[in-house]
Amino acid sequence: MQSDLQQNSPEVNMPAVQNSRFLRACRRQPVDCTPVWLMWQAGRYMPEYRQLREKYSILEIIKTPELASQVTMQPMNAFNLDAAIIFADILPPLEGMGLELDFVKGEGPAIHNPVRTAADVTRLRVPPPEESLWFTLEAIKLAREELDGRDLPLIGFSGAPYTLAAYAVEGGGSRNHTLVKSLMMSDASAWHKLMEKLSEIVGHYLLAQAKAGVHALQIFDSWVGQLAPEDYRQFVMPYTRHSIEIARAAGVPIIHFGTDTNGMLELIRDAGGDVIGVDWRIELDEAWTRLGDQIAVQGNLDPIALFAPWEGLQQRAQRVLDQANGRTGHIFNLGHGILPGTPVDNVKRLVDFVHEYTAV
Amino acid sequence: MQSDLQQNSPEVNMPAVQNSRFLRACRRQPVDCTPVWLMWQAGRYMPEYRQLREKYSILEIIKTPELASQVTMQPMNAFNLDAAIIFADILPPLEGMGLELDFVKGEGPAIHNPVRTAADVTRLRVPPPEESLWFTLEAIKLAREELDGRDLPLIGFSGAPYTLAAYAVEGGGSRNHTLVKSLMMSDASAWHKLMEKLSEIVGHYLLAQAKAGVHALQIFDSWVGQLAPEDYRQFVMPYTRHSIEIARAAGVPIIHFGTDTNGMLELIRDAGGDVIGVDWRIELDEAWTRLGDQIAVQGNLDPIALFAPWEGLQQRAQRVLDQANGRTGHIFNLGHGILPGTPVDNVKRLVDFVHEYTAV
Repeated sequence: MQSDLQQNSPEVNMPAVQNSRFLRACRRQPVDCTPVWLMWQAGRYMPEYRQLREKYSILEIIKTPELASQVTMQPMNAFNLDAAIIFADILPPLEGMGLELDFVKGEGPAIHNPVRTAADVTRLRVPPPEESLWFTLEAIKLAREELDGRDLPLIGFSGAPYTLAAYAVEGGGSRNHTLVKSLMMSDASAWHKLMEKLSEIVGHYLLAQAKAGVHALQIFDSWVGQLAPEDYRQFVMPYTRHSIEIARAAGVPIIHFGTDTNGMLELIRDAGGDVIGVDWRIELDEAWTRLGDQIAVQGNLDPIALFAPWEGLQQRAQRVLDQANGRTGHIFNLGHGILPGTPVDNVKRLVDFVHEYTAV
Repeated sequence: MQSDLQQNSPEVNMPAVQNSRFLRACRRQPVDCTPVWLMWQAGRYMPEYRQLREKYSILEIIKTPELASQVTMQPMNAFNLDAAIIFADILPPLEGMGLELDFVKGEGPAIHNPVRTAADVTRLRVPPPEESLWFTLEAIKLAREELDGRDLPLIGFSGAPYTLAAYAVEGGGSRNHTLVKSLMMSDASAWHKLMEKLSEIVGHYLLAQAKAGVHALQIFDSWVGQLAPEDYRQFVMPYTRHSIEIARAAGVPIIHFGTDTNGMLELIRDAGGDVIGVDWRIELDEAWTRLGDQIAVQGNLDPIALFAPWEGLQQRAQRVLDQANGRTGHIFNLGHGILPGTPVDNVKRLVDFVHEYTAV
C-alpha cells in the first residue's frame, strides 16, 4: 500500500492539501471519493451573501480583500465542498486595461467605453496584475489563511482571452456576439493585437494568483461556444494557449472551461489544460471518450437540476457519476455556474450525495 | 442519362418544381449546383420589409395573408434563392391554445398568461389549425400562386414542441430556461400533458400546411440545445417524433433543425426528419459523418459571417461547401436565422457564390 501511495502521490513530503481529493483528481490519481465543487458556488443564491450585498456593491466586495475572502468561505462553511474558489469576477482585468466597468442592476455588467476600433485597441494598457488586480491577490492570501487549517485547496481563475474580448467589444453580455465577431472577421490586425494584449493579461493574472497562493487555476471561456471551430482555431486558440503557457510556469493544475463547445471539444483540449470542463449538453462518457484518457474532466450536471425536487436532482447527479464510470480524474461540478434562486438545501444534499455515492 | 434521371427522380411525371434543386437535395438526389435558402430570409434586414413594418405590426402582417405572401416573396425577388419559406412566426400556434401573445418593441415576444401549473396545462385548447391558423394556410395558397410560375418550392414550418413549451412556460425568450426545465423536472405528469398537446398542435399544423400547398416542412427546435441529452431523450424526443410522424402523412420532405445540439446530434436525427439542420458550432463534415450518409444536411454558415467583408464571407462559405465534400443532399443555409442589420449586398453575393462555386 505504501508503495502504491508513493507511486500515485509524488508529493508525500508536500503539504497535506496536495493529497486532497480535488488536487489528486486534477492529476488523475485515485481518490477516496469523487471531489466536488460548484462554479459560482459563492454568491447570489446564498442568504449570507445577499445580506452582505445589502451593504456593499459587487465591485466593493471584490475590491475589499477581507470581504472577498469572507464570501469565498461562505459556501465552505455551509457545505462539504472539496475546493474553494476565490470570489472575484472575470471583468476587473478589463478595468486595469482602461475600460470603465459598471454592474447595472438587473442588467449585468456594462462597459462604458467598449473597444470598437483599432485605435481603441492601441489605447488598451497591459499593466502587471500586482498593480491592477492587487485586491484579488490579497484576498487569495487571506482565504489561504482560512483554508490552511482544513487542508482544503483554493482555486484562482480568469476569463479567457475570447470571453474578455467579447465583453470588451460588446460592452456587456450579448446574445449573438455580432460586434466582437464582426471585428474578428473584418479587421484581423486589430483583432490579433487585442488578443495579444488579453492573452498577456490573462496569463500573468493566472500566474500571479498561483504565486499568491492558489493551488489550481481555472480559465473560463464561457462564451467561446459562439464561434465556428475554424474561427476558434485561427483567431482564438493561439491566445488561449499562450495564456495557459504563461500560467503553466506556476506548476499548478489548470482547468480549461467552456460552454457550447461540444462541436469542438478536441480543439479546446488542444489549447491546453490538465482538466477540461464539460457543459451539460453532452453525456460525460461521450465527452471523455472524445477527449481521451490523458485528461481529467470536470462537470457536467445541468445547473437547472438543482431546482428539481431531490429525487430528480439525485437521478441526474447519479447519471453524471455513472457516466464517469470509475475513471480517475473526474471532478464533479455543474456544466455552468450555479444560478440565483438555487435552493440551498439541494446544494448541501448534492455535495454529500456525490461523496457518499462514490465512496470506495 | 435518361435512365439515370429516372432512377434518381421517380417524379418525372410530377410538376417541374419536384425536380428543383432544393427538393432533389432533400431527397439526396444529384443536383446541378448546391441549393441555398436562408433561415429568416424574409424580414428585418430587408428595406422592403422595414417599409411595410412602418404601417403594420408583425402580427398584422402574419395574420393578413396578402401581406404575409408579399413578405414571403420579397427575398425571392431580390436574390436567386432556391426555396421560399412562408412568412409566419413560431408563436401563433400558442395563441390558438389560449395564450395571449404580444410582440413588445425591442424585447421580443411576450405571453401575458404563461403556463406554470398543471391547471394551466389543462386549460390549453387543441384547436384544428384550419380554425386557429387559417391565415398562414391562406398565405401559403397565395404564395404558391406567385411561385408556381417560377417552379420554385415553398417551405412551411412550425416550432417544435420543446421550443413552443419554452415560450409558453417562460412567457418569452429566456437565457437559462429555468422555469420550463423546472416544470419538466418537477411535475412529469403536467409536463407530459403539455407536450402531448403541443405535439398534436405542431404535427397537425405542419400537415395542414402541406395540404395547403407547401413542398417541404421545417420543424424548428431552436431552444432544445438547452437540454441535457438524457432529458431530451425522456421528455422531448417522443413528442418531436410524434409531430414528425403526423406530418409525414403529407409525403413531403421534413427538415429538422436545432441549435446547440452538437452533444446529441444522433438523438435529433433519431427523432426524425429527412434533412437535419446543423448550426455553425461544428464542422459540417464532422456533423455529417456522425449523422451518417442516409440523411441530408442543411447548414451551416455562422450568421455573423454575413457581417464580414466579402472576402471573409466568401472564405467561410467556401469552407462549408468544401466540408460538404460533394456529398449529395447538402442544402446550403445559415446555422441559425439571418440577423437584423445584415448587409443586403452580402446576401445577394453569397447566394450567387454558392451556385457558382458548386456548379457541376
